[in-house]
Amino acid sequence: MNDIYEMMSTLRAVRRLRPDPIPDDVLNRVLQAAAWAPTGGNMQPWRVIVVSSPERKKALADIYGPAWYRYAKGYDERLKQLPPDEAEKARKNRVAGDYLADHLADSPTILMFVADPKMMAITDAKLDRISMVGGGSVYTAVQNAMLAARTEGLGCVLTTLHCLAEEEVKAALEIPDDWATLAMVPLGYPVGTGHGSITRQPPAVLAYDDAFGIAWS
Amino acid sequence: MNDIYEMMSTLRAVRRLRPDPIPDDVLNRVLQAAAWAPTGGNMQPWRVIVVSSPERKKALADIYGPAWYRYAKGYDERLKQLPPDEAEKARKNRVAGDYLADHLADSPTILMFVADPKMMAITDAKLDRISMVGGGSVYTAVQNAMLAARTEGLGCVLTTLHCLAEEEVKAALEIPDDWATLAMVPLGYPVGTGHGSITRQPPAVLAYDDAFGIAWS
Repeated sequence: MNDIYEMMSTLRAVRRLRPDPIPDDVLNRVLQAAAWAPTGGNMQPWRVIVVSSPERKKALADIYGPAWYRYAKGYDERLKQLPPDEAEKARKNRVAGDYLADHLADSPTILMFVADPKMMAITDAKLDRISMVGGGSVYTAVQNAMLAARTEGLGCVLTTLHCLAEEEVKAALEIPDDWATLAMVPLGYPVGTGHGSITRQPPAVLAYDDAFGIAWS
Repeated sequence: MNDIYEMMSTLRAVRRLRPDPIPDDVLNRVLQAAAWAPTGGNMQPWRVIVVSSPERKKALADIYGPAWYRYAKGYDERLKQLPPDEAEKARKNRVAGDYLADHLADSPTILMFVADPKMMAITDAKLDRISMVGGGSVYTAVQNAMLAARTEGLGCVLTTLHCLAEEEVKAALEIPDDWATLAMVPLGYPVGTGHGSITRQPPAVLAYDDAFGIAWS
């Protein structure tokens, strides 16, 4: 039995993946988990491209690498302003991020989640702020897939930096013009211990009691 | 033990909720599950307001009801164009949606997920399409909360229609100007059987092999 709370509480970003292939039955369970996710009006407006050929993985890596290293410059700047313990953690994440960027093509599989906004009722589309609701019919599936990956002993991490070069990604994977790319999830067996303890704020910080700003206890 | 795949495969939209209160330890497990979710840069840019006072629940119901019935008009139009079996299912959903709108204030608890875009690196913000990536650091938590709700025997449903009247919602829950509302999740013990079998497209439809449009098998 795979206890749901154990999986949730140990799902961490795993960026160091072994090239060993993922058996089809394991991959199928990850994809099935994604398929079970709720979406607005049950429209399931997303698809997932299971990228596994060396050519397409290399194409993604060639796009992702430069995007990561451009992003990492700003990351290093912010790192300088952090208190020492946080800076140490951020530095480790930077190194793990470099590793992912340098070895992305070696992941056995890369999941690319795409979605068609025309299949969604995006209720915040006309508000005077950036829209985010479209993600509500996609990241539920991404989260299910990552929880299933963790359950199957696979490492994974949700990345969105590829959006900085979305046109190139769409060309590489033959994604139609009117579809959007929402998440890239490299998937494989971990090099190290993989999943394990995570650092998160507790409900006492994240939850409010009846109105914004009133601490939940 | 609560098997993760059993929970995922039986998490369905439950809109008929009993007014019975939710014990604190049960609610805490739902909130803890949300807190465990991954977010971009581990920033956890979301908060959840646990709405349970009769006054604030009524305020949300007074906002949500009219928004639902406005939306439902368009729903009825689309319904007329569906094949008979799909129309029957859609008609049931319409009735369940009416029930939710009419009884929202009777739910023991309503979770309102909010987020601060300033705490996010939204990588698709400047693309020539509607942005959706901001949701990637919020709906992972919403999905964890719903899976936990299902695990605890609570009914729930992810709704976003409240965004059609977001300013009123923000006023009702004292949400600061620069925060956005992403999901409203009514939570309570089900009137009927609650969770159970779900209808979803299979991976053979939702997953593609190496490039868009190539069926996964």
